[in-house]
Amino acid sequence: MNQEYILAVDLGGTFIKFGLFSPAGECVYSWKARTALESSGDFILLQAAEEARSAFTYCGLPLESLGGVGIGVPGAVIGGRIVNRCVNLGWGVFDLRKQLQQQLADRGFGLVHVQALNDANAAALGEYYCGAGKDYRDMALITIGTGIGCGIILDGRLREGAFGGAGEIGHLPVNPAETAYCGCGKRGCLEQYAAAGGIVARTKQQLTKSNTPSLLRHLPDLTAKDVLDAAASGDPFGLDAARFAGEMIGRALACISGVADPQAFLIGGGISEAGDVILDPIKESFRRNVFHTSTDAVIRTAELKNDAGIYGAYHAVRVHLENE
Amino acid sequence: MNQEYILAVDLGGTFIKFGLFSPAGECVYSWKARTALESSGDFILLQAAEEARSAFTYCGLPLESLGGVGIGVPGAVIGGRIVNRCVNLGWGVFDLRKQLQQQLADRGFGLVHVQALNDANAAALGEYYCGAGKDYRDMALITIGTGIGCGIILDGRLREGAFGGAGEIGHLPVNPAETAYCGCGKRGCLEQYAAAGGIVARTKQQLTKSNTPSLLRHLPDLTAKDVLDAAASGDPFGLDAARFAGEMIGRALACISGVADPQAFLIGGGISEAGDVILDPIKESFRRNVFHTSTDAVIRTAELKNDAGIYGAYHAVRVHLENE
Repeated sequence: MNQEYILAVDLGGTFIKFGLFSPAGECVYSWKARTALESSGDFILLQAAEEARSAFTYCGLPLESLGGVGIGVPGAVIGGRIVNRCVNLGWGVFDLRKQLQQQLADRGFGLVHVQALNDANAAALGEYYCGAGKDYRDMALITIGTGIGCGIILDGRLREGAFGGAGEIGHLPVNPAETAYCGCGKRGCLEQYAAAGGIVARTKQQLTKSNTPSLLRHLPDLTAKDVLDAAASGDPFGLDAARFAGEMIGRALACISGVADPQAFLIGGGISEAGDVILDPIKESFRRNVFHTSTDAVIRTAELKNDAGIYGAYHAVRVHLENE
Repeated sequence: MNQEYILAVDLGGTFIKFGLFSPAGECVYSWKARTALESSGDFILLQAAEEARSAFTYCGLPLESLGGVGIGVPGAVIGGRIVNRCVNLGWGVFDLRKQLQQQLADRGFGLVHVQALNDANAAALGEYYCGAGKDYRDMALITIGTGIGCGIILDGRLREGAFGGAGEIGHLPVNPAETAYCGCGKRGCLEQYAAAGGIVARTKQQLTKSNTPSLLRHLPDLTAKDVLDAAASGDPFGLDAARFAGEMIGRALACISGVADPQAFLIGGGISEAGDVILDPIKESFRRNVFHTSTDAVIRTAELKNDAGIYGAYHAVRVHLENE
C-alpha cells in the first residue's frame, strides 16, 4: 500500500490553487495563493515549491512523504512535461517537470515525480474520476467562460495530442465567412461566438438592429450573465444570444463527435451555470449537426465546478505512479 | 510462433477484395469478386465465407489453418463486431462477428476470430503499418474520392468511437451559411465542397458566373479529374476549384487537430492523385486555420492506394490475436 502524499496544483493567471491528498486519496488540506506573475512568470514554480514546503511544515508531514506532484497549467503540455506556451503566464516552451523537480529538490523534497497537464485536461480527468463523467469510458468536458476549453478522455486515457493541442476547441474554425479576427489571430473561431465576450458582442449587435424593447438595453456594462439571465426570463435578445451560442457550441460538439466520437459531453464553466437556457440550444444544434451514428451521445452539465482541476491533477499523478 | 493464416476482406459496394496472409505475414493470394447486393445484402457474408473456402481448397490449405478474419465494411462499426448501418450494402444494425463466424463454421472452418472495422479505419491501419504512416505514433488518413473518409490512429491505437463514428469527417459541419442539403440530410457538410461531386459543382457554378475562357467549358461530362487536370495546366476555374476544395479540407484537418492533434495527416483517395495541385491548397489552409500549437503537423500523400484496406484488415486481426 502506497504511503505517500500527492500534491495537486491548479495554476491560473490570478491564483494558484493547491490540494494535498493523503495516501488514502482524501484531500486533507487545500489553499490558494495569488500567482507570482512578475518577470514573465519566472518565479511561479519557485513559488509553488515554497508553498509546498510551507504546507508540509504546517501539516507536520515529513518532506519525504511527498510522492508526486500533478500540476495543471493554462497552456498546451506535451507528454506530461513540456509546456508548449502559456500566454497568460508569460511562458514559452520549456521542461516544466525538470524545473519543478529542481525547485522541490532545492527545498529538501528529494526527487519526486511531476506530472504536468493542460488545465482543461486536468478538469476533464477530475470529472472523469470524481464527477459527472464517472459512468463513461469516453468523454469530453467543455468549459465555457471567458474562453472555451476542452479535455478529451478516450477509452479511459487522456488525449493530450502530439503537440499538446488536443481539445483546443476554442479555436476550431467554425465559420468560413467571418471577417473579424479572434484574439488568436485567426478568423471564425468558436470562441468568437460562444465564449462570454462573444455572447455580449452578439447581443449588442442585435440590439442595434431593431427597436424591440429589452431589459438589456438599460444595463450599463452588459455581461454574459446578464444576457443569459435575461434569456431565462424570456427576453428576446437574451434568447437569441443563447440560441446563437448554443448553435455554435453544438456544431463544435458535432466536430468532436465526427473526429473522436465520445460517449458523453459534459458542459462546464461559468456559462453552463445558466442551465437549460444554454444547454437546450446546445443539444438541439448537436442533434441537427452530428452524423447519424452518434445522435445518442449524452450531453449534460459537469459537476465539480472549480475543484475539477485539483482532482484531475491528483488523479493524473496517481494513475502515473500506479502504472510505473 | 503462430502457424495460422489470416484472411483480410475489404467489402465495397461493387467488389469484395480478399487477401490471404501466411503465418509469416505475407499476402500469398489475393482476388476479388462482385459484391452480392441482392436482398438488402443478406448474402454478402455467406458469399465471403464461400470465397474463403474456395480459396483454401485452391491453395491446398487445411481449413483449420485459418486463424482469423479481418473485414473492412463501408459503414460504422462498434467494438470490432457490431455494424451500425452500411447504407451502400443495405445493412442496418447487427452483429457481423457472430454472423460471419456462423457462416465460416457452417463451411468447416471451426470457430475463428472475426475482427470487423470501418473501411476507412482499415485503410488507416494499412498506412500505419505498411505505408506512409510507418514513422508516426499518431496519424489520420483522409481519403478523398466520391465521398470523404477518415481513419484516426492515436498513440498506436485505432480510434473507432463509442458509436463507431470516429473519423466520419465527410459530414463535419464546416459551413453554417449553407442552404443546400448534403446526401446525409444535413447542410454544410465537408463532402458538399471537397468530394468529387462538390469539386464539379463548384466549377460549374463558377463557370456560369463569368465569361473567362476555360477549356472546362468544352467538356461534356465534367469530372473532378478533368477539373484537377485543368488546374495542373493553369486553367483559372480548375485552380479556383482546387483552392476551394483545399480550403475546406484544410479547415477539416484543423478541426481534427483541435480535437485529437495527431502528428501527421495522410491524404489518399482518387482526388489526392492530382498531387500538389490539391495538396498545396490543403497545406496552406491548414496552416492558416489550425491552432498555433500544431502548425508543424505533417501533411503528405498516402502510399498504399487500393491495397491499404486489405493490409489494414490483416493487421487489425493480427494485433487482436497477438494481444489475446
